[in-house]
Amino acid sequence: MLEALKQAVYEANMELPKRGLVTYTWGNVSGIDRETGYVVIKPSGVDYEDLTPDQLVVLDLDGNIIEGDLNPSSDTKTHLELYKAYPELGGIVHTHSPHAVGWAQAGRDIPCYGTTHADYFYGPVPCARCLTTEEVEEDYEKNTGKVIIETFNSRQLNPVHVPGVICHSHGPFTWGKNAAQAVYHAVVLEEVAKMAMYTVTVKPEAAPAPQHVQDKHFLRKHGPNAYYGQKMG
Amino acid sequence: MLEALKQAVYEANMELPKRGLVTYTWGNVSGIDRETGYVVIKPSGVDYEDLTPDQLVVLDLDGNIIEGDLNPSSDTKTHLELYKAYPELGGIVHTHSPHAVGWAQAGRDIPCYGTTHADYFYGPVPCARCLTTEEVEEDYEKNTGKVIIETFNSRQLNPVHVPGVICHSHGPFTWGKNAAQAVYHAVVLEEVAKMAMYTVTVKPEAAPAPQHVQDKHFLRKHGPNAYYGQKMG
Amino acid sequence: MLEALKQAVYEANMELPKRGLVTYTWGNVSGIDRETGYVVIKPSGVDYEDLTPDQLVVLDLDGNIIEGDLNPSSDTKTHLELYKAYPELGGIVHTHSPHAVGWAQAGRDIPCYGTTHADYFYGPVPCARCLTTEEVEEDYEKNTGKVIIETFNSRQLNPVHVPGVICHSHGPFTWGKNAAQAVYHAVVLEEVAKMAMYTVTVKPEAAPAPQHVQDKHFLRKHGPNAYYGQKMG
Amino acid sequence: MLEALKQAVYEANMELPKRGLVTYTWGNVSGIDRETGYVVIKPSGVDYEDLTPDQLVVLDLDGNIIEGDLNPSSDTKTHLELYKAYPELGGIVHTHSPHAVGWAQAGRDIPCYGTTHADYFYGPVPCARCLTTEEVEEDYEKNTGKVIIETFNSRQLNPVHVPGVICHSHGPFTWGKNAAQAVYHAVVLEEVAKMAMYTVTVKPEAAPAPQHVQDKHFLRKHGPNAYYGQKMG
Repeated sequence: MLEALKQAVYEANMELPKRGLVTYTWGNVSGIDRETGYVVIKPSGVDYEDLTPDQLVVLDLDGNIIEGDLNPSSDTKTHLELYKAYPELGGIVHTHSPHAVGWAQAGRDIPCYGTTHADYFYGPVPCARCLTTEEVEEDYEKNTGKVIIETFNSRQLNPVHVPGVICHSHGPFTWGKNAAQAVYHAVVLEEVAKMAMYTVTVKPEAAPAPQHVQDKHFLRKHGPNAYYGQKMG
Repeated sequence: MLEALKQAVYEANMELPKRGLVTYTWGNVSGIDRETGYVVIKPSGVDYEDLTPDQLVVLDLDGNIIEGDLNPSSDTKTHLELYKAYPELGGIVHTHSPHAVGWAQAGRDIPCYGTTHADYFYGPVPCARCLTTEEVEEDYEKNTGKVIIETFNSRQLNPVHVPGVICHSHGPFTWGKNAAQAVYHAVVLEEVAKMAMYTVTVKPEAAPAPQHVQDKHFLRKHGPNAYYGQKMG
Repeated sequence: MLEALKQAVYEANMELPKRGLVTYTWGNVSGIDRETGYVVIKPSGVDYEDLTPDQLVVLDLDGNIIEGDLNPSSDTKTHLELYKAYPELGGIVHTHSPHAVGWAQAGRDIPCYGTTHADYFYGPVPCARCLTTEEVEEDYEKNTGKVIIETFNSRQLNPVHVPGVICHSHGPFTWGKNAAQAVYHAVVLEEVAKMAMYTVTVKPEAAPAPQHVQDKHFLRKHGPNAYYGQKMG
Repeated sequence: MLEALKQAVYEANMELPKRGLVTYTWGNVSGIDRETGYVVIKPSGVDYEDLTPDQLVVLDLDGNIIEGDLNPSSDTKTHLELYKAYPELGGIVHTHSPHAVGWAQAGRDIPCYGTTHADYFYGPVPCARCLTTEEVEEDYEKNTGKVIIETFNSRQLNPVHVPGVICHSHGPFTWGKNAAQAVYHAVVLEEVAKMAMYTVTVKPEAAPAPQHVQDKHFLRKHGPNAYYGQKMG
């Protein structure tokens, strides 16, 4: 079932340790087949070096396991909430990449200090608030997704233009049109978080890049007038 | 004698350079066989690339050498104190991993800023006080162990819930149910120390994660209601 | 056409990921043949691991494509402006190397804090101002080159003595007598940016190296009385 | 001539890139044969990947070339001054390792914040003052050595107990009983500089380790009552 998607999600998962984004099992990637509504996700707590494509778990959007012998990632419900809210998403990644976590633990948005950031994230990477005691007790992982969505709604953000978030006291989630692009955005977010940390080290009161520079770089790569790359997709 | 334990302690020692936790000989791992009460530990000052399982030293809990031609690690007495005080421990690690040392040299507890930390350490990683002149002169390594124990007693900490410590002006010790888990916790501590450093770089006055988030993450992985992973261990 | 130059520019491009200066496609190297006035540059958005010498694009200094099926780097016009203004340049590099970006995003010149810097850059690495809205709208990449030139003119800097610049809210450009030397200077700039960041971490109010030390080190390596190395180049 | 020493100095030079201490040609190692008074040193500006033992240059302590077709390291006179002043030295290293340079550029001694430092350096790593204009003009490299010696004399430091220095606005020199130990100390110095930087990041006003802890760790490894290691060297 969904062999091509499983292979793609498997390869996207394996990209995380290759890119230095995970220690041990601290990350997971999922992908969705929008026709069936089935989600493929990494099993919980399995080492990347032991992971095989057939260990991936298939669920429906209500969290029912369709295929797989292992428990799905403990963050599965967060993924499902995001897939339900945003039909544009084809893949989602969660990591504990250290620079992104550094900002998340500080509870600060990552300002758009420059073009590296603006090429992929339109405006700051938002920091979603901590969950309340009630939200944690009721359903921690599901409510993590709901608070991310609340953040995007209240700030009127488009998840295609801002393909990631950092959750206060926790870490980053990123997404994309498929699992591979979601991982690409996870790599970008970590790089951008690192560069922003270097910027505040050198100048704590640094200002974001001017809006017209942010606009230029984002639109050079995205939208109908984009001209970066080879128009290959 | 104790061939399986020697092999396990050997492999745990070799994991330290593989994980980037040691420079030269700046680390050591031990494991204990609770039936005989014998401890297996790295010899002092031997390069990791030259280390072989048969070079490991076997001692009893009083420090008498049972087997081995080489001097045991100079930190052996610290290990022995911890094994005597805490029967739950099966393995102990000492390193000079740089971010953990950074906090230790600053004499600051590592605050629990987020879920990466809370998944493994319940509350801050405590910083044990410096030894007095008298304690250093009387028996430096033994008293290092005693001051760690004093720290856990005075703060009423459970060493299973807080599987490590940083010693002021020195560096980290971690432990676990066996040597492999002790090394796992050494890796986690270094990552957590790094992320916490990034957090204070971005926001010096950052607050710890809310208690209910710390509780949730720790209990999601530990205790009777844990649901992370595959219940394999 | 220009096979030797293509090979040299190809190899210079491949040096960027080898030296850890680029993530994904975030960099480009060009070289110029001064006889024909033709510039060879990396195609836009092509992964380094897929890049082959025959994919390189050949343009004239007005930006007309002379040879090549792919779009040239989106930064091509910046390269062309610099080649037109400075006949001494044989190669140009753009990267988003993180420490140089950290300073660029802070909008600060990189002070010449020591001899590592003075050996290659005479005085601070200048930070060129942000482009205005009008400059971005008119021709972003061309005006990026013009603002770099404005910076060197207004400060009366010699681009041979200061072989690089950081652009505010963006990142570094470096150059040299050929593509290989331009990459060499990109590596040096990233190292110098890192060391300067470490210096302000340790002492925020650190002063530049004394002028006589800067003079000594630069002139030990450059000019008629240089005595570093083997006089091979 | 001096084939064994050449081989040892060659291997010590090659250890620098292997340990990540040098970029390009930014380092050099020498060793001395005290019977003949001849010094073997890396040639200037030769890439490590191209270096062969027979390229090493042999000089006497007055700087006369005894053997070798290439120019010796531009820092040769600094090495010679140190060999002449300190008969205990058998090897000397100069690098631009980035954390040590960070402190050197800040013009700050590296405080002895903990046991990693105290195990090898007794007290702070001193920062030697900048050379005056006259000293630079007269003989830059020779006077660099003289200012290092001045620093040790005025502070009454024993170069065997403090096997290295950082030169203001420049970088580190380390030494040892032979070339291999000098490189070992270069690695230690870079690690210690990094840990100290982490410490001031976490706590800018951090205090040095108590004197009795510094004494204990240094004397545990050095002197007649040392008990670290296997008494092999």
